[in-house]
Amino acid sequence: MKRINVGIIGCGSITKFRHAPEYKANPYVDEIVFYDRNPERAKALAEEFGGRTVTSVEELYNDPTIVAISDCSSNESHHINSTNALLNGKHVLCEKPLSVSIKYAEKILEAQQKSGKNLMVDHNQRFTKAHQKAKELLEKNELGEILTFKTSFGHQGPESWGVDKSNATWFFKKERSHSGVAGDLGIHKIDLIHYLLDDEIEDVHAFHGALDKVDENGNPIEVCDNVVCAMKTKKGRLGTASFSWTYYGSEDNSTTIYCQKGIIKIYHHPDDQLIVEMKDGEVIKYQLEQIQTNDNQTSTGVIDSFIESIINDQEPIVTGKEALTSLKVIEKILS
Amino acid sequence: MKRINVGIIGCGSITKFRHAPEYKANPYVDEIVFYDRNPERAKALAEEFGGRTVTSVEELYNDPTIVAISDCSSNESHHINSTNALLNGKHVLCEKPLSVSIKYAEKILEAQQKSGKNLMVDHNQRFTKAHQKAKELLEKNELGEILTFKTSFGHQGPESWGVDKSNATWFFKKERSHSGVAGDLGIHKIDLIHYLLDDEIEDVHAFHGALDKVDENGNPIEVCDNVVCAMKTKKGRLGTASFSWTYYGSEDNSTTIYCQKGIIKIYHHPDDQLIVEMKDGEVIKYQLEQIQTNDNQTSTGVIDSFIESIINDQEPIVTGKEALTSLKVIEKILS
Amino acid sequence: MKRINVGIIGCGSITKFRHAPEYKANPYVDEIVFYDRNPERAKALAEEFGGRTVTSVEELYNDPTIVAISDCSSNESHHINSTNALLNGKHVLCEKPLSVSIKYAEKILEAQQKSGKNLMVDHNQRFTKAHQKAKELLEKNELGEILTFKTSFGHQGPESWGVDKSNATWFFKKERSHSGVAGDLGIHKIDLIHYLLDDEIEDVHAFHGALDKVDENGNPIEVCDNVVCAMKTKKGRLGTASFSWTYYGSEDNSTTIYCQKGIIKIYHHPDDQLIVEMKDGEVIKYQLEQIQTNDNQTSTGVIDSFIESIINDQEPIVTGKEALTSLKVIEKILS
Amino acid sequence: MKRINVGIIGCGSITKFRHAPEYKANPYVDEIVFYDRNPERAKALAEEFGGRTVTSVEELYNDPTIVAISDCSSNESHHINSTNALLNGKHVLCEKPLSVSIKYAEKILEAQQKSGKNLMVDHNQRFTKAHQKAKELLEKNELGEILTFKTSFGHQGPESWGVDKSNATWFFKKERSHSGVAGDLGIHKIDLIHYLLDDEIEDVHAFHGALDKVDENGNPIEVCDNVVCAMKTKKGRLGTASFSWTYYGSEDNSTTIYCQKGIIKIYHHPDDQLIVEMKDGEVIKYQLEQIQTNDNQTSTGVIDSFIESIINDQEPIVTGKEALTSLKVIEKILS
Amino acid sequence: MKRINVGIIGCGSITKFRHAPEYKANPYVDEIVFYDRNPERAKALAEEFGGRTVTSVEELYNDPTIVAISDCSSNESHHINSTNALLNGKHVLCEKPLSVSIKYAEKILEAQQKSGKNLMVDHNQRFTKAHQKAKELLEKNELGEILTFKTSFGHQGPESWGVDKSNATWFFKKERSHSGVAGDLGIHKIDLIHYLLDDEIEDVHAFHGALDKVDENGNPIEVCDNVVCAMKTKKGRLGTASFSWTYYGSEDNSTTIYCQKGIIKIYHHPDDQLIVEMKDGEVIKYQLEQIQTNDNQTSTGVIDSFIESIINDQEPIVTGKEALTSLKVIEKILS
Amino acid sequence: MKRINVGIIGCGSITKFRHAPEYKANPYVDEIVFYDRNPERAKALAEEFGGRTVTSVEELYNDPTIVAISDCSSNESHHINSTNALLNGKHVLCEKPLSVSIKYAEKILEAQQKSGKNLMVDHNQRFTKAHQKAKELLEKNELGEILTFKTSFGHQGPESWGVDKSNATWFFKKERSHSGVAGDLGIHKIDLIHYLLDDEIEDVHAFHGALDKVDENGNPIEVCDNVVCAMKTKKGRLGTASFSWTYYGSEDNSTTIYCQKGIIKIYHHPDDQLIVEMKDGEVIKYQLEQIQTNDNQTSTGVIDSFIESIINDQEPIVTGKEALTSLKVIEKILS
Repeated sequence: MKRINVGIIGCGSITKFRHAPEYKANPYVDEIVFYDRNPERAKALAEEFGGRTVTSVEELYNDPTIVAISDCSSNESHHINSTNALLNGKHVLCEKPLSVSIKYAEKILEAQQKSGKNLMVDHNQRFTKAHQKAKELLEKNELGEILTFKTSFGHQGPESWGVDKSNATWFFKKERSHSGVAGDLGIHKIDLIHYLLDDEIEDVHAFHGALDKVDENGNPIEVCDNVVCAMKTKKGRLGTASFSWTYYGSEDNSTTIYCQKGIIKIYHHPDDQLIVEMKDGEVIKYQLEQIQTNDNQTSTGVIDSFIESIINDQEPIVTGKEALTSLKVIEKILS
Repeated sequence: MKRINVGIIGCGSITKFRHAPEYKANPYVDEIVFYDRNPERAKALAEEFGGRTVTSVEELYNDPTIVAISDCSSNESHHINSTNALLNGKHVLCEKPLSVSIKYAEKILEAQQKSGKNLMVDHNQRFTKAHQKAKELLEKNELGEILTFKTSFGHQGPESWGVDKSNATWFFKKERSHSGVAGDLGIHKIDLIHYLLDDEIEDVHAFHGALDKVDENGNPIEVCDNVVCAMKTKKGRLGTASFSWTYYGSEDNSTTIYCQKGIIKIYHHPDDQLIVEMKDGEVIKYQLEQIQTNDNQTSTGVIDSFIESIINDQEPIVTGKEALTSLKVIEKILS
Repeated sequence: MKRINVGIIGCGSITKFRHAPEYKANPYVDEIVFYDRNPERAKALAEEFGGRTVTSVEELYNDPTIVAISDCSSNESHHINSTNALLNGKHVLCEKPLSVSIKYAEKILEAQQKSGKNLMVDHNQRFTKAHQKAKELLEKNELGEILTFKTSFGHQGPESWGVDKSNATWFFKKERSHSGVAGDLGIHKIDLIHYLLDDEIEDVHAFHGALDKVDENGNPIEVCDNVVCAMKTKKGRLGTASFSWTYYGSEDNSTTIYCQKGIIKIYHHPDDQLIVEMKDGEVIKYQLEQIQTNDNQTSTGVIDSFIESIINDQEPIVTGKEALTSLKVIEKILS
Repeated sequence: MKRINVGIIGCGSITKFRHAPEYKANPYVDEIVFYDRNPERAKALAEEFGGRTVTSVEELYNDPTIVAISDCSSNESHHINSTNALLNGKHVLCEKPLSVSIKYAEKILEAQQKSGKNLMVDHNQRFTKAHQKAKELLEKNELGEILTFKTSFGHQGPESWGVDKSNATWFFKKERSHSGVAGDLGIHKIDLIHYLLDDEIEDVHAFHGALDKVDENGNPIEVCDNVVCAMKTKKGRLGTASFSWTYYGSEDNSTTIYCQKGIIKIYHHPDDQLIVEMKDGEVIKYQLEQIQTNDNQTSTGVIDSFIESIINDQEPIVTGKEALTSLKVIEKILS
Repeated sequence: MKRINVGIIGCGSITKFRHAPEYKANPYVDEIVFYDRNPERAKALAEEFGGRTVTSVEELYNDPTIVAISDCSSNESHHINSTNALLNGKHVLCEKPLSVSIKYAEKILEAQQKSGKNLMVDHNQRFTKAHQKAKELLEKNELGEILTFKTSFGHQGPESWGVDKSNATWFFKKERSHSGVAGDLGIHKIDLIHYLLDDEIEDVHAFHGALDKVDENGNPIEVCDNVVCAMKTKKGRLGTASFSWTYYGSEDNSTTIYCQKGIIKIYHHPDDQLIVEMKDGEVIKYQLEQIQTNDNQTSTGVIDSFIESIINDQEPIVTGKEALTSLKVIEKILS
Repeated sequence: MKRINVGIIGCGSITKFRHAPEYKANPYVDEIVFYDRNPERAKALAEEFGGRTVTSVEELYNDPTIVAISDCSSNESHHINSTNALLNGKHVLCEKPLSVSIKYAEKILEAQQKSGKNLMVDHNQRFTKAHQKAKELLEKNELGEILTFKTSFGHQGPESWGVDKSNATWFFKKERSHSGVAGDLGIHKIDLIHYLLDDEIEDVHAFHGALDKVDENGNPIEVCDNVVCAMKTKKGRLGTASFSWTYYGSEDNSTTIYCQKGIIKIYHHPDDQLIVEMKDGEVIKYQLEQIQTNDNQTSTGVIDSFIESIINDQEPIVTGKEALTSLKVIEKILS
């Protein structure tokens, strides 16, 4: 079995908690090469996960043993780093969102086309077991045509996460977050709906606003903390979507797909992550995932899928084009 | 205790299953007087529930012992019958929808104003125990300000109901149903949201369509079988609503209200009809209703409320003005 | 839609509770014609279910409007009645067991071949929703090859059933029951295993005995009340089977199929009649059947399937040949 | 309280995880003396659990302070080590199976008789709380006579256990495992049935085969991975047994005992490890064991029972004679 | 099987709903002979349950075919009717309370002694399955000595029962009820504790009062609606008891017995009517009774037990002496 | 935010497990100063929790930076230490029981009055979430007047706790424990009832005894291990209470409050710590607390409440006067 080396640009949390450990666990990955503007951060990860560091991105580009690169740089740099990596002949896994504007995103896609290398974007909702199972059921078409859908993604807000737990979080800043809850949570569900329905949201009506969150000075935040949408797809399906940072109870990560012969309910019940209700009263409950504890953290599956696409020379499961399509829906929502 | 006589115009199913039995069970009602264009139908109900029949609506209007009238005539006649009844000094309980057009509805409201009598419309969602409890919790303001909401009303479609179970049902006909699922199910939830939030839907974006239902000839129906909406209220709350005749599994009659300190979930769980989740993790579950069986059919509460408003000389719980407001939202949805 | 007439030979309990009501409910059946040696019993059913009576089996055979006949005569007469009905050009639904000996059973099969008419035997386990779903899953082959199985059928004994509740029951008599619990319960599961596995039990080792039941005089019964078997199929699958009239607790009607990728558990849990456990820990639970009450008695599906085979000119789901194969396994068990 | 020294022959996994920690926890055990052909392994355990090491078995035999010996040597050496230990005046706890042949097993029994010392075999199923409770209920005879039984022991196979997780496991090798799943899992349940029923399996019919497992080269394994049996005991009870390495879902460790007045179900439900169903509908559920986690690993009870038999000068709960009887049933199954 | 005739004095509700149907269902009872001061009431029951009527109690006493008599007369007549019946050589089942005073009760006991006939009192709590099972467990002494206990009997009050549902109920009247909730509910639990503990309450401290109930005029009732007690038995056990007509939620009929090795909890959980918790953490749950519906009304067991005591010439399960003992405890509570 | 220093007298378990960690976690506490007669114990805690030690109580009294003192000395010293601390101008949190006699307790109260400082006693039952919620519901008076109550506090006994697990525990000694289970568990519930009912137990009848516990010599203990009480409050409510060290199953910490419109059940169900049952059948279940594990030990809330009373210059939630009132009830129980 041939193994490959990978490079990582940017050594923040997403690298530490997702990219580095999942690359390390992947049997096809030989060595991880870390780069960060701050060399200390790169060194820390190299110590924790093994591998080595470089002091410039060019070293990554010029190293012929490095086959693939994770672009975990901050959002405003993706169109520079991912583009260069691709043009230097590397496969790229770019963190979400693909870019801060449609124009820049298109530039990355052009680089991908030119290079012929794989470009994948980290939309990880597709990879959960329940979404995979829903996709499988829908592809088998046992429930008939899809008619309508509902999807939600909401929790108590990003300021309650992390070590700091402060309202000064970058999520609340216009210049860094750009799109508030729409870009933070909404884009995940837009991508998911495109994937599950094998369709594209063509038309969207939405309201959005900063209804409750305040910044560290007690002023309403500059980005939206809630979005509600009515949607129509190219194939004519209708649906609603709600994205929120103000669900002050349990998290809602649910999606429901209404078909001609039954209904698929995803993440409505903690034990049975997917439930199918049939027209004749049959109910089928899927227990797909163990309760996660600190001891059995599961992988997102994204890294494995990216590596698999390289090894098997296949198109990645989330392409740059798909990521662009989702970005455009977010733009429409916020316009 | 003084008791009153009531008249009923129209002796179809809604009279037989709701108005007549609930008037009969009400301790303030003395006699029911039935009218129908087809005298046989009136007689049949008089035999079943006691009371007497008349052969013209004028007899109802001219009978000074009759204090209140239920207008259960077909929708296109409401603006005639309810108007005349009011102008003849009767309190009126009008079936939903108040009328087939805004203009006609306004005419009924004018009659009400002129007469000074009570006009109530049969929007029965307000009266269920879970919605009453939600209203009580929201009025106490223990959860803080309302921020967003979701509401749904959907089932397998009206053709699966009733004795006939035929796709030739009037619900599917443009000329009789006018507004399809929007008027059948949607108006109930619009009224409910107005009531629970003590607010009004000011702006609405929607998609609607006939996605699946076909008529007796296999042609797509002329009215919508699905509606999806994004909404904004006068007070700035945002929400989504879905109304559907194509939920081919269990019925969805749920509503969720997101507040600053917690979430109210209504009709999400069959045993606990109302669940409150608090920001700090507390969960409060309300078992408000017994499972209904044939032996313990519960009253809708609408008739009792109407009679109570007359006895106590109060404004009815659902006024004509409120019904008109809901009608206008439906118009916007379908425009 | 062309409708047919059916005749029934024998008007005992199985006719009253299963054949007559299910023929009556079948949309393709026009008239039922009843025959019994005791004309009063035939008349009673004709009054209850509609239809008419005849006073000899020949009248059934000679009536050209009668297309199909249910042979509900006592077991020792099947080889006479079913044979004659077939040779007179009728489709035949024969009660189980097909016959009291292999030889007689083969005679019925010869008649079927000669006549070209359908011969179906009432092995109703195949028709339950859980067994149908198991068959569907196995045919799709999603669980890989079948390796082993377990099946059980046991309850507190036939003397606790019926109106009499007496140990003098014919089930306990050698001359009438022949094969005790093996023929009463065992043959159902033999047929089921053949059906689900698409295979045939080739070799069987068994013990049987009258371990507990006594007749009306307190003597051990002459037929077996328990059978335990180890089995091997033509395709090499191994399994165990237990048939018992001495399960003095809840009934056991369960079957488990062990495959290369998972396990199918049927009738192990009252709510989830079929449960699939996968190798990776996934569990899928199927709620297929409502709890049966007096008000929602379900059909066995056997009559409908028999009529469907006639209308569509197809081979019936349980053929005479299959019934003979199961009979032969019972013979081996008891030999 | 007088305390004793114990010796252990063989320092593999079974010593590390069961014998050493349970001896250490036993209040009557003073010192553990470890022997292994590889002195390093002995030393490692002496460090972990305290105690000392010797470099030859003779040192164990000749040490007068050592009263008892655990024979954890590999199976083909039991008849040598256990025999010598007994003849040198030590009580012996021999790992299962007692020996690789009936002849050798009988030799060990002869040594036990000659020495008058205790010989116990590690059949640990008897010691679980649910089996102990079942034994207690059966001895009280409140359910009447035992009539029939079912027992199963199956899981995904031994190759999925341990650190290696390889198909090269010794369990799959003819020369080391001898009897495949029959000796690995079957002998536990044979012993258990003998114990619970106070009876002996006299006659057994079985099928066995290597239906699914392959070795490290992809060839079918040489020992059986499945056994199915029909059984008859000396007292005339009938039963089935299934032993499997190919239950690709949850483990099955269940046993059911059918009596004249009710049924005992053991390990059918994770919370209620023993359930009694009575003829009149009563159900009694026993929650006997906590869910085991890494923090509350429970003892098997075997070591404590062995020590107790020595301290109290009683016959051990599992005698060599009983182990021999179970071995003979396995031989019959495989013949 | 010899069958007997029984007489019933008094044809009120307790006769109609309990005595008459249970005598009718008893296989040893041949004919029921009804007496009431109002002959119409007697006739009505004779028609409903079969049997005949008499017009004086003397006819019952003088009829040699009548072996046993139920005294269902009003409480103030028990000492007359039961005494005369006994002295005329009849076995007597007297409704509770045995009498309205200790003196009168003693008079009935004297008559019983003189006559040598059986006198049983209708304390039906002893006969429920859960109490029978508790008695069985305590007699086996598996939980060691009884140390303490708690018992409660409370519901929403007798005025919410029956057809009338009026506060004018005789339960609230001093002259008819005498002892309020103490005599209505308390005496049942006093008898039960005596029975379960095989002991006698020797000392009791109590508070009682009319805390909430009002009569038809809105005045506080003259008898107690609540009793709370601390108790000590002859054998030194300590316990509390609460009897209430003001438990405005679900009924509480629970009893807990604390022993040296565990706890018995009766009627704490609707499904598991008896739960045993052991010192070592074991929990044993008994499902003893089906949920009662209109279709499976269960017998109290009292009539059957009374008849059985006559047939077998045994002392009845609830003797007059025991009833007197319980009466004396009630006196102490109210003194 | 101004922060304060606190002193602790006595460095035993209650300081180590409750006072020190909760002071440390409180944002208003700057430094903890530890005193113990044994300076080593003080030093150990200062190392574990930060802070410093002193070698005499006077140093605490004379340190002007120390604003508050926890008196965790042994019971017989409270009237000395707490009194002196108060008279030296410190706020005092005194461990329960306030003192070993009414007289001494009154002396402490005098000191509090003289000093004008806060005196709080560690009755922690008031602070649990379920008791707080019950208080809130009762204060809102939604259930109407309180009529009766039941309360229990019992477990397997104090000898099963702690490291030693010995019957030589001081809890069993007359001279150290004084009041046995009454003072250990009973006083908690007396205080709780006073708090929840906003009332005072005026009259109490009780039995108590040493029914089961024995000391290290096998002799019955000198203090009571069980108390049963009937109680009456100043406002006329009636109730029972049971305190026990001999509940040999699960712990009982339950309280039930019966009101005119419903019932409040506290700690009857592990998931729903508070359940309200309403007269009309409504049931409201409160999940207030997570299951406690080693990782999410919750605070008692007592320290925070004490500090809060100081910061806000309010009366503490548990005053010395209230503690004295509860002590007096315990005296009556044992008299």
